[in-house]
Amino acid sequence: MSTEPDISADNDEIARRSIGARRNPASQEAILDAAQAVMQEGGIAGFSIEAVARRARAGKPTIYRWWPHRTALMLDVYKRFKNARSFPDSGSLRSDLISFLEDHLLGFWQGSLCGTVYRAVVAEAQTDPEAAKVLKAYQAERLAYSAQMVDRAKARGEVPAATDGELIVDLVVSYAWHQLLLGQIDDAIARVPTVIDTILGGVRGYRE
Amino acid sequence: MSTEPDISADNDEIARRSIGARRNPASQEAILDAAQAVMQEGGIAGFSIEAVARRARAGKPTIYRWWPHRTALMLDVYKRFKNARSFPDSGSLRSDLISFLEDHLLGFWQGSLCGTVYRAVVAEAQTDPEAAKVLKAYQAERLAYSAQMVDRAKARGEVPAATDGELIVDLVVSYAWHQLLLGQIDDAIARVPTVIDTILGGVRGYRE
Repeated sequence: MSTEPDISADNDEIARRSIGARRNPASQEAILDAAQAVMQEGGIAGFSIEAVARRARAGKPTIYRWWPHRTALMLDVYKRFKNARSFPDSGSLRSDLISFLEDHLLGFWQGSLCGTVYRAVVAEAQTDPEAAKVLKAYQAERLAYSAQMVDRAKARGEVPAATDGELIVDLVVSYAWHQLLLGQIDDAIARVPTVIDTILGGVRGYRE
Repeated sequence: MSTEPDISADNDEIARRSIGARRNPASQEAILDAAQAVMQEGGIAGFSIEAVARRARAGKPTIYRWWPHRTALMLDVYKRFKNARSFPDSGSLRSDLISFLEDHLLGFWQGSLCGTVYRAVVAEAQTDPEAAKVLKAYQAERLAYSAQMVDRAKARGEVPAATDGELIVDLVVSYAWHQLLLGQIDDAIARVPTVIDTILGGVRGYRE
């Protein structure tokens, strides 16, 4: 029932022909560009598959085929920004985690569209099971990826081989989420080294 | 323009007369009872000031005067459940934090209306500035209160006097939020002692 969508005047004929058959990188990018533009201009409140389709000059069915859920599309726009940042690898776990929390999480979200988009994604995941699934999968993937910082520290002998890298990274990410979702990133950024030192070293002077 | 609300047939004449003049404990309780019943029967999706007013046989303006925001009312229902639990005071910071995370946070939310209500409160705070203010104030109050566990540990000499109690509690609460908001409380409960040992003792064998 749907006609072939007119994704963008810039796409070439080959890209146009393949739309609908499978995810096509060129058209996918065009839709992500459109989604990003819609967010940047109208904020989260004005973000809808309909608005993105209009902007991308694509059919709604095409967008829904690739992104079955509004949240999935929002998260893919978010990921594009995220993936454009290089991951910390300073040769020290402490420095890596500080820059992970300060730059990759809090700083990345601070005062930018990315923070707003991520807050909206988390919000939608609380009431919509499909959005929850998308977010949970993304977090699992990110935790596994970020735990590589700890793997490198194991290789350097900074932490024992049995260290649970995902737990360490989870504590850092959890702290960042809590601050983001309470809207208090500015305060949190000042405390980053203390937070990382506590996670790595525990409470100084603690005796059971 | 508003008429005096008919809060409940059970309220006595004195309570009835004072409605509208100030927060009246009896009528406030009646409205909280109604709000809780509405949530229990219809879930979060069916929760509205209108439904609560109908159930409480109160006027909407009265509810709005006491709870200017749907989220504030939801959070007050949540608090009633929360306040009904006694706070851990076992004589050991480790045990207190374990029972705080296991019973007061994760266990309290697990498979109950409380978890669903709190997820909805957090979600609303992401897009609604009034809801955000309500949640932020509640969290600040809870963090200060929960930090008393660390104050008692200071008095016992378990941790130095300079220890930042709110940071420790914040790390525990942050971890709990992250798990709640990702819908993975069951997995998290199994890891509670490890999480607390990491926060208190740091990464075992870590050397910078």
